[in-house]
This record gives sequence, structure tokens and C-alpha cells, in this order.
Amino acid sequence: MKKFKRFTNPAILCTLLFVITSCDNKEESRPNTLEINNSTHPSLILTQDGVAKIKAELGNMPIFSKELQTVKNEVDAEIALGINTPVPNDYSGGYTHERHKTNFFIMRKAGVLYQLLEDEKYAKYVRDMLFQYEDMYKNLPPHPQTRSYARGKLFWQCLNDSNWLVYVSQAYDCIYNYLSAEEREKLETNLFRPFADYISIENPQFFNRVHNHSTWGNAAVGMIGLVMDDEELVNRALYGIKNDKLDASAKDNDGGFIKNEDGKAGFLANLEEPFSPDGYYTEGPYYQRYAMYPFLVFAEGLQNLKPDLKIFEHKDSVLIKSVHTLLNLTDADGEFFPLNDAQKGMSFHSRELVTAVDIAYHYGGRDPELLSIARKQGKVLLDDTGLSVALGIKNGKDEEFNKKSIKLTDGSNGKKGGLRVLRSGNQDFSLVFKYSAQGLSHGHYDKLSFLLNEDGDEVIQDYGMGRFVNIEQKGGGNYLKENTTWAKQTIAHNTVTVNESSHFNGKYEIGSKHHSNLYLFDANKKSIQLVSAKDTVAYPGTEMHRTMVVITDENFEKPYVLDIMRLTSNENNQYDLPYYFMGQLIDTNFEYNVPKSLKALGTKNGYQHLYLEGLGSPFEGNTKISWLNKGRFYTLTSALKKTDELLFTRIGANDPDFNLRRDASILFRRKNTKNTLFASTIESHGGYSPVSEFAVNTKSTISEIKILLDTEDYIAIRIVDVYDNTKDFIMAINNASENEKHILIIDNREYQWTGAYYFK
Amino acid sequence: MKKFKRFTNPAILCTLLFVITSCDNKEESRPNTLEINNSTHPSLILTQDGVAKIKAELGNMPIFSKELQTVKNEVDAEIALGINTPVPNDYSGGYTHERHKTNFFIMRKAGVLYQLLEDEKYAKYVRDMLFQYEDMYKNLPPHPQTRSYARGKLFWQCLNDSNWLVYVSQAYDCIYNYLSAEEREKLETNLFRPFADYISIENPQFFNRVHNHSTWGNAAVGMIGLVMDDEELVNRALYGIKNDKLDASAKDNDGGFIKNEDGKAGFLANLEEPFSPDGYYTEGPYYQRYAMYPFLVFAEGLQNLKPDLKIFEHKDSVLIKSVHTLLNLTDADGEFFPLNDAQKGMSFHSRELVTAVDIAYHYGGRDPELLSIARKQGKVLLDDTGLSVALGIKNGKDEEFNKKSIKLTDGSNGKKGGLRVLRSGNQDFSLVFKYSAQGLSHGHYDKLSFLLNEDGDEVIQDYGMGRFVNIEQKGGGNYLKENTTWAKQTIAHNTVTVNESSHFNGKYEIGSKHHSNLYLFDANKKSIQLVSAKDTVAYPGTEMHRTMVVITDENFEKPYVLDIMRLTSNENNQYDLPYYFMGQLIDTNFEYNVPKSLKALGTKNGYQHLYLEGLGSPFEGNTKISWLNKGRFYTLTSALKKTDELLFTRIGANDPDFNLRRDASILFRRKNTKNTLFASTIESHGGYSPVSEFAVNTKSTISEIKILLDTEDYIAIRIVDVYDNTKDFIMAINNASENEKHILIIDNREYQWTGAYYFK
Repeated sequence: MKKFKRFTNPAILCTLLFVITSCDNKEESRPNTLEINNSTHPSLILTQDGVAKIKAELGNMPIFSKELQTVKNEVDAEIALGINTPVPNDYSGGYTHERHKTNFFIMRKAGVLYQLLEDEKYAKYVRDMLFQYEDMYKNLPPHPQTRSYARGKLFWQCLNDSNWLVYVSQAYDCIYNYLSAEEREKLETNLFRPFADYISIENPQFFNRVHNHSTWGNAAVGMIGLVMDDEELVNRALYGIKNDKLDASAKDNDGGFIKNEDGKAGFLANLEEPFSPDGYYTEGPYYQRYAMYPFLVFAEGLQNLKPDLKIFEHKDSVLIKSVHTLLNLTDADGEFFPLNDAQKGMSFHSRELVTAVDIAYHYGGRDPELLSIARKQGKVLLDDTGLSVALGIKNGKDEEFNKKSIKLTDGSNGKKGGLRVLRSGNQDFSLVFKYSAQGLSHGHYDKLSFLLNEDGDEVIQDYGMGRFVNIEQKGGGNYLKENTTWAKQTIAHNTVTVNESSHFNGKYEIGSKHHSNLYLFDANKKSIQLVSAKDTVAYPGTEMHRTMVVITDENFEKPYVLDIMRLTSNENNQYDLPYYFMGQLIDTNFEYNVPKSLKALGTKNGYQHLYLEGLGSPFEGNTKISWLNKGRFYTLTSALKKTDELLFTRIGANDPDFNLRRDASILFRRKNTKNTLFASTIESHGGYSPVSEFAVNTKSTISEIKILLDTEDYIAIRIVDVYDNTKDFIMAINNASENEKHILIIDNREYQWTGAYYFK
Repeated sequence: MKKFKRFTNPAILCTLLFVITSCDNKEESRPNTLEINNSTHPSLILTQDGVAKIKAELGNMPIFSKELQTVKNEVDAEIALGINTPVPNDYSGGYTHERHKTNFFIMRKAGVLYQLLEDEKYAKYVRDMLFQYEDMYKNLPPHPQTRSYARGKLFWQCLNDSNWLVYVSQAYDCIYNYLSAEEREKLETNLFRPFADYISIENPQFFNRVHNHSTWGNAAVGMIGLVMDDEELVNRALYGIKNDKLDASAKDNDGGFIKNEDGKAGFLANLEEPFSPDGYYTEGPYYQRYAMYPFLVFAEGLQNLKPDLKIFEHKDSVLIKSVHTLLNLTDADGEFFPLNDAQKGMSFHSRELVTAVDIAYHYGGRDPELLSIARKQGKVLLDDTGLSVALGIKNGKDEEFNKKSIKLTDGSNGKKGGLRVLRSGNQDFSLVFKYSAQGLSHGHYDKLSFLLNEDGDEVIQDYGMGRFVNIEQKGGGNYLKENTTWAKQTIAHNTVTVNESSHFNGKYEIGSKHHSNLYLFDANKKSIQLVSAKDTVAYPGTEMHRTMVVITDENFEKPYVLDIMRLTSNENNQYDLPYYFMGQLIDTNFEYNVPKSLKALGTKNGYQHLYLEGLGSPFEGNTKISWLNKGRFYTLTSALKKTDELLFTRIGANDPDFNLRRDASILFRRKNTKNTLFASTIESHGGYSPVSEFAVNTKSTISEIKILLDTEDYIAIRIVDVYDNTKDFIMAINNASENEKHILIIDNREYQWTGAYYFK
């Protein structure tokens, strides 16, 4: 295996200004077809019209020129290295995988450079590489690695083969007119059509699903079909394969069902089903980001070549909406909230989001807020959409992207639960609350879970996925077994686990049929925002009702969170509620013991991965836990029962390959209980600088949180601050009507209000 | 206890431009003494001449104006809050401690503002606060908290009282002429003189030492003496108290001896002893930073008022040298290498280093490299030295501070071992190797230890201190017991522990008498830099000889480290050599088992704080361990014996208050051995971006490291890379002469060279 000697950081952008150089040394004398408008190519993503406009504006748009120079440097370096199309052998992260992956990225870029720079060396490079693939593909068997439910040929799974074709379709379109008719015929007959057939007809279990895998497959087949002007391929892409004869009980490698319930397939079905009317993609933002590229780039091709389909207006413009949704599901640093299977750190700086933002801007009404994201991304697509964005930025049209509290429904009809993000004004305090559907095979068993993020830093974390994407040494860069045994389990999340068993018993077949339900959402007031949802399906016979409130109070340095988890059951249960706080424990107000040796907390359902690091009992009154993270102090104050157990846990037990992070939690355990309530506040306060060594406002501002009432109809929580100011939060729990009048007497005091809740 | 409602981040700088406002509303009609040059005040730090020059240049120096505005905002906010001098009660982090601390900072600043802005409200504020102190101090008993070996009155230790007086002396000097003679008489009689006497004559165990505590005490007494024109106080500060009758065996809270061996005391002794001729301060950079403020600010006062003392030329200009040393002991982010007791994150952005850089620039020959540090600091002192720096920056005189490989001796005569930093060219790869003396009471038992830092990130960490400075909840912000039981112990460091006992048996009395010795140092070549040192004192009868080499080789992406630890003993020993790597384990090439439950590795000497997380055996040939940290891959490749044990450890056992970080190490254990050699390489390679999800150059470039020879006279190591290139490193171990000729035959191959080592 040859090694890279130099580390090339793809994030480093060259700041040189681009200068067009004329090419005097044409290696072969072919007619320069670019000068004659004798054809419709390029027409898929780049268009002839777009190329002309770009050339007219070049040198006039710094962000475009910078990106063009970056791409030119990258492609020139690859051309200098020579073409290499090794016989496929490796999993992701391995040499042949990474080489073929680089090849398709570079072919697309070289095609674009050929169009924009009119330098034939780029067209020749693409042509020569395509013919090496043509030569190899003719006799290529399925990939030697057998782990996938749908093996590719160039890669270990059809998914990556589809990636290849999505990119190569664009390259082919760019050099279409450079090639002779015979060359095109040869490539289409020996490479593109068999390639498209292999990932569709020969692998319907991959192609004919509602899943991000199939979206890639559909886009791949459709895009090469558009370039080849092959209506049959385009229709196959749009509507799927009829009579696929798939087994209704078959599953993929991630445990997801192959066959869609209603039998629909194809690109339009993939557009229809996983997106809610709000543009939320049921797998979560990490996979939405991954799927957005084929969705948008194929849609762009369809818009250019089949404009009558009006693809961008489909389902009330869901594709454009989905880009805004995705941007709203990022923290202050632009990183996606890691819901379901998600690798942390993925952000709107990714290439997929550059595509998404540029296409959404160009085809979605030129929203000036998208330009500020493009400015932060620092790059644009080298096509018609990137031109629009670059001109928009150049002309100073950008406006700040304004992230607010948002409501997102889940399910194709918006009726399968959802997601809420509560955001406070200036502090960029984001509370993400999840009461969605399962999220297909990448979903986690975490009904009514939440995460809390402050200014781009995790305060209460969602673990994310158990996977090191593309790092070969870690299980070939694929999902690790700890993703199933730990990351997907309920106990890995900030929600209740009943009787040490995950929601739906961790069974995908059950979980994928159900969802939680919103009870109440109000994000209109300055002093209080809340979301409340119920779940009756995760544990049959047990209802979970969680209400999360963000309160802004002038006595407090920052907004704080009130978290109320109400449980109702017809049986005695053990309720475990963990908070995965990030940072160093600073203080508690209760006694606890640390064990002499660390043992796993259980044997299954994720408990086998938790060490018990400390065990204590609640302090009379309130339990307080403070920690320090990235220079900020946090305090969790909880109204607990004296018989509760307080468990300090740490992830890492039964982890033979050190795949898990050694992160902490405090876990509240209440045993032998039917109906009960947990109530806590989470404050962010003060700060610490290791440079000044000043510690400011290191203590909680809450002196007491008290459960005043917990009946069949109401819950009432009192919060007293250290200045002896009192706030009462009361909520009707079976009547969310805005107009209902309530009168309630608690401790001889009468409360009257209209609407579902009271807060004063 | 009153709480701060707003979080004030002292690092946030106001960017408003400063505008001088004339003060029309004088509260009292006093003569404006600033206009009449009838006195020598201010004369200590600010001078009358300096004030005039600053006023002439104001508005002309952005960095100065910005700082002036920042300070004005801060002082104005404090004036608005009103004066508060509470009865002392708390440890650090507590309210009364923090209040008195803020008071002295603000008084000094208010004094400066009075001089520069000619607004009497600042003088009045200082005067009124001083009289509140005068009123309280007269009858104030020692501080109620009794933990310190030298209790203060305003604070729990004389150290903090001395801080107060160092700052307040400057404030007093600034408003000296504003006060009436009666007012000055009253303050000097009832406050300043008793204050100075209390921290000196009444606490000789604090004042009469060679220690950073005493440096503060000396400066405090000397500076108030200079302002009061009291020769007796100044002499007490410079030369200490005669006949202090201190007990030679007494110790302070940190276990350090009170009484200096030769009985010397006072500022000049403190300047003489702990600094080596190279300007290295024996306690290490964290405490050097802390001590620099009183050293430099008192020196500045002496230079202004006792210029004949030529304090800045003392000991071959050691004070100025020490500033350069301190700056060289920072990583790429300006953070100090955390040697001995040190809190991580402390950097050249601290207020002490702003002082140090400005004073060193003004009094030390106006080195333009210091200006680039001042520019990064973004602030200057509001005095004559800050004026020089601000003008230097404004006039574009700054040059980049060039950090190179450096050699620093330890001990007042430079003969007590030392420290070396090997730096590679562009990569900011810093290897810090320590073979110093004990470092007084803040020293650690870590002979021949090292740390490795890349571009501001820790690769192989030194744990630093077990303390959360000024965070009251963590043991009053003071040293935690884990500092002694863990952080100071040998096993907490990247060096050899013999028979599970710390160097010198962890006995300060012994350790403080000894030091290691340099064997060889060569930082002149591009391809190889090395440092080699021996220790015969940490374990009587056992010699440790460590050689650390940084090799730059074009086959490697970056420079890599060769680490050779040679041990010679007259008895069979167990040798433990840990590497505290930072980040997530990626891969090993050997088998290991993880235990079902985690137990402490031992019962004492730090071993009680380590969990054993995995136990394995070396792979035939070489042992490889790879990890990922902050987007970079690292590999440790080691030539070990098949009978060695490989222990994965994690810090955190027997840590009932969660005071320790849960960091990992790989520990090589070799049992029942007299003479032996450990040889390893450490490579940094490739990278990973969670945004692009590209993993580049994820594997080591070394295919083999082999011990060719280990005799009484030579060691020879062979390194083979994956391209089959071979490099041999041979070193004579008892003859470091540059001129000696060597001929050696290994495996029938003859090596000839001149000098202590061969590398080819």
C-alpha cells in the first residue's frame, strides 16, 4: 500500500487570486467544441448559459475565484500524480476505497475546470480515467468484501458506487462534447448503463427502498439517464422498479427494513416519505446532510432538463424548506445537533451543505439569510448556483441567518411526533427536545430525550453514534458493535429508562411503528418558552410526560431550564433518569461513596457499558450538582425523594477496543414506583479563566425547587431564588386548550389563569 | 452573601476609542496638585515625566487608548457599586477574599486613572477606600481561617496580604500629592507600617525565605517603603530580617522548608538563588509567571528611585533574561508548559506577563521581538513602560518572537541540571525534557521526564497540578490532597518509576538536595536534534540515562521523536515507563484483555489513583499504539521484550471528590531486571476532519525500531521506515567529547564517526 507523504488538509483554502491562463500547448488537435453552441451539453448542473455568465463575471467575485483556484490546485496536483484505478479490495478508509472516492470527486472537478478554463488537459484527464474504468468495469465481479447487504463493484457497498455515478454523471456531462460519438457509445454501453443497472435492477434491495441509500441510487441512475438522454433510466430513478419481489421481512446491515410498507420506491417516494411538511428528515440532521446532496443535485438536473416536473415545488417546496431546517438544526458553530446516528463535528461547512445552500439560494427565492451562511462557508459551487451566491455576496445582499426557537414535525404527513428547539435570545442557549418517530434504521430509542448546547459547546450531551467514519482501523470505518449495544440504547440518552430495558425493548420492528405526541408548545413569550410531549408507546402501560421550559428571569445571569418528567404506570417500576453532563464535577450538596473497584451497572441494554463511579442519597430538600466546562459553571438542582439513589456513572465498561468515550453522567434512580414526578433546573452561570484565574458567579442562583402538586390533572413546581423571589409554574396535564379557564387552590392560595399553564 | 448578577469576563476588551473627558463637577475643591510639579510623586511605577509623555501621546496609540478605556470602564463600574471592605472571613474563591482582591486591583487602576485623566473622583475613591481599610486594620486580628503556615489579616495567608500591599503601594503613590500631610501620616501610621511589619517582622517564616511567597513579601514591604521614603523598610525588603530565629526543620503548607540553607533572605537573595544564569526560575514557568510581577514591579520602583542599585543589571541582567526564558517556555498558543505544580491554560496573556513584557522591553534594550508578544497580548501597562511598547507597536517596530530549541540550566550557579526544549522548524512540535533540580516545594518527582506538544495541543501530557485555583468549592481553591498523592508522584509523569516508589522515595528533604545531569545536547543540525541526561540520585544504586532525539526525515510527514531510556542497576528491579497520551485510542498491534471490573493498580505513591483498564503483551517485533487527538493521528512504536507487560491505565481511582481528570496512559512494565533499555518512537501523522470525513495518512511510517546494541559503552538503535529506508542512531554513553573518534562493529558492519553520536 502506498502512503501519502504529505498531509493535505481539504479545509485549507488557497487565498491566491485566480488568473485565467490561455493554453497554448494543446496535446491533441480536437475541435474546440466550447466555442460552437452546437449541443445541449453541459446541461445537467453546469449549463451552457451558466458557463457563459460565469466567464463574464470571473475575476469579479472573490469567493468564486478563490474556490476556482483551490479546485484548480487540487486537480492539477492529482493530474501530476497520474491516473490510478486500482482493483477494488478495501473497506472505507482503505487504499482502493479512498482512491476511487478521490477519483470521482476529482473527475467532477476536472469536468468543471474544462468548462470554465477551456483547457483540454482537464477533459483529457476525465476521458482517460473514464476509459480506464470502462476497461476494468466490463469484467468486474462484485466487491470482494462481503459485509454489505448490497455489495457494490468499485466499493464494498452499492451506496458508494452510487456516490461515484452521481459525481461522474456531472463529469461526463462536462466533457460530453469533447468526446467523439464512438467514445460516448463505448462508455455508455460498457460502463454507464451496466453500472446503472447493477445498482438498480441487480440490487433492488438497495435501489427500491425509502432510505438515504436508495436516494443516492435513484439520483445516480437518474443523473446518468439525464446526461445520456435515456428516458427509461430517468423514469426508473423517479418511480423505482416495479415488481421488485423483495422480502417484506428482510433487513439491511443497520437493522432497517428493506421493503417499504406501501411498496412505493424511487426518487419521488424518497422525497415524499422521509421529509415532514416542515422539511425535517426523519433520520435526523446528520443523515439529512448526507442525503441532501443527491436530493438537491438530482433535483437541479431535473429542473434544468425536465422543468415541467417542477421538482423544487414538490410537496410545498419541501426540498428548499429542508435546507432551512437543516441550518436551524446547528449550534452556534454551525455543527449539527447529534440526534440518532450522528458523528459529532459535522457542520454546515461540509461540502453537502455548500451544495444545499447554493441550490436553495438559486432555486428557492434568493433568501439573503442564506448568503451569510455561504459567507461563513467561504466557498461556493463552481456552477450557476454558486454564481448567484457569489454575486449576492459581492453585492452585499447577505443578512444574518436568524436562528430562532423552531418546531419541526416528523413523518411524511407531519403527524408522527417531532422535534423542538428552544433558543434563548442572545446567549445561544439551545435546548433540543425530541419526541419524534423512530427515524428509520439510524434512529435511537430515546423518546422524550433532550440535549443542551451553549454557544457551540455541549452542556448535556447526546452521545451520538458509535462509529469513526472512514477511519479504517476502527472497524473499517463502519458502525461499531457499540453503536447497537450502547449508542442506540435508551440509557445512553437523557431520558427515562424503565426497568433497565430500552424503549420498545430496543426492537426496531416495534419502534418504527410508533411515535410520541406533542402536548404543548409555546415559544412566543420572552420570559418563558416551553415544549411538552407525551409518550405512551415506548413502555406499554406506562406514560411518560416530559415538559421542558426555558425561563428568562432578571435575577438570573442567563436563561435556565426547568425539566419536569412525569410518569404514570399501572405497575411498580424502576425509573432511571440520567444527565450526561460534560466537564469536571465541581461540587455536590449530598454525600456519596465511591466504590473500591468499578463494575458495570448491568449486563445488557447499554447498562453493561456504564461503570458505577459513585453512589449517594439525596440531600434533604434539594439535590445540587455543579460542574465546570469550557470556562462556564453549570448547576443541576433537583427535587428528589429521600429514597432515590444518585449514581455517578462513566461510559467505558465492556469496551474491549476502547471505542467509547469515557464521559460521565449523574443518574437518578427511583425504585418500586408507579406514578411519580422528577423536577430539575439546569443553570449556566459565571465563568472561570485559567489565565486571569478569576472564578466568577460559581454558585447556583436557585435556593429551592419544590413540587407543589402532582395530581391527575395538574402539576405545579415552585422555584425560589437566592434573593427569596418565588416563581410558580403550573400546568394542566390533560387539557392544552389556550382558552380554558383554570382555578386551583394550593396550600390555601388560589391560582386563576387561562390557557394550559400558569407562570408567575 | 451577595451574588454577582452579571458575568464579567475580564478577557473581553472594549474596542471603543478612548476620548478624554474634562471633569467639570469636582466634588470637593482641592488644589489640583497635578498641575504643579511640587513633588516627586508619582515616582514608583508611573513617574511625573512618564505621565507628561503619555498625555502628549494619548489618542495616538490605539493599543494604549483601548486599554485605558477598558480600565476606565472597569473602575467606573466599581465606583458605581460603592466601596466595600468586608470583615475578612473566607478562603480563596469566597466572597471576602475575592472582594479584597478586587479592591487592590481597582485601587491601583484608579490611581493610574487619576494621574492620566486628572479626574479627582478616582483619587477620592482610593482615599476613601484606604481610610476604610485604615479604620478596620487598626484592630484587625489574624484571619479566622487557620490553614496557612503564615496567616494574613485581610486574607487567609500573608501571601495575599502582600499582593494587596504591592498593588496598594502603587495606588498610594498615585494619589500621594492629592492627600493632605495629615491624611498621609494617618495612613502610614495606622495602616501601611503595621501592615508591612505584620507580613515581615511578625511573620519571618513567611518573609525571610527564598521562595515566591517571600518575593511578594519583600516587594510589598520595599514598595511601600519607597513610597514612604522609609529606608529601613526598603533595606528590610532588600536584605531580609537579621536573626530571624527560624527553625531549620520547619515546613510550609506545601511541604517546603522555611529556612534557607545559607540563611540568606530578602529580595536580592530571592533574585540570586532561584534564578539560574539563563533566567530559569527553579519552581518552573507557572510560578515564575506568578513571581515575575513582584520581581519586576519592585525592580522598576528601585530603578526609578534607587537607580544606583542597577537592579536590572543584577546577576548579568537575569531579570530581563528571565522574561525571554518564560516566553520560550510557552507553546504555540502562548500557554506555559505545565512543569511542576502548574495550572494548565496559564499563558503569556496573563496580567503578569503583560507587566513582564512591557518592563523587559522598556528596561531591557527594547527588543523588537517583545513587541510581537505585546501585540498578541493586546494590552499594555498604563505607565512609562506601556508607553514605550505602545509607541513601538505604533511605529511598526515589532518582529516575530522566534521560539527555538533552548537550553536552560537550573540552580543559582547553573549547575543543578536543567531543562531543554527541542523544537522542530515549522511544525511547532515542542519536546520539553526535564533533568532539573527539585524546584523547591512546588517541584515534582519527575527526573528525566518529558512532555510533547504540537501546535498548542498536548500530545503526551504532563498532568500539571491537582488544584483548581480560586474555585472555592474545590478545597477553597487551594492545593488538593491529590496534588501530593497523585500529581507530584513519579508515576504521574512520563518517566521511569522503579519498584513502584517515587524518585527520592517522594521525600522532599532528599530530592531538594539533588539534581540530574546533562550528558549531551545538540540542537544545531536540521536533521537531528538531541538531548541526553543521566540521573544517579533518584534511586540510589540505579542509573537512568535518557536520550531524546527529534529527527527530521523527508520520508516522514513531520519530525518524529526517538526516546531511549537506559537503566543500570545493581539489583533486580521493576521498571514502569508510562506515556500519558491524549486522545482516543485508535489501534494497537498487540492483544490485550480488559478486566471485568476496574481496580486500582496499587495502594500508594500515586498507583492508588490509576485504574488498570487493559493488560497485554508485546507483539513479536514492535509494539504499536495509535491514537487520534484534535484531528491528528499519533503512533508510539516500541522495541520491547516479550516478557514485558503493557498496561492501559486511567487516572481516577480513589478520587472521592472527582478532583482528577480521567486521562489515559499506556504503561510499559519490565520486571526482575537489572540493566536494560527501552526504545520508542513517537510520530505525529495525517489528520481527520469530522466535516470532510477524510482520514489522511492514518498509519505510522515506521516499520521497525530495533535495539542493535546495548553495551557498557554504546547504544545503537535502528529505525526502518515503510519504504525500507534504514537509519542507525549510535551513541557513546560514557564519552560526550565532540572530538573523540569511534570505531564500532555491529553485525559485521563497521561504523566510524567522530563525536558522541552517529546518525545516518
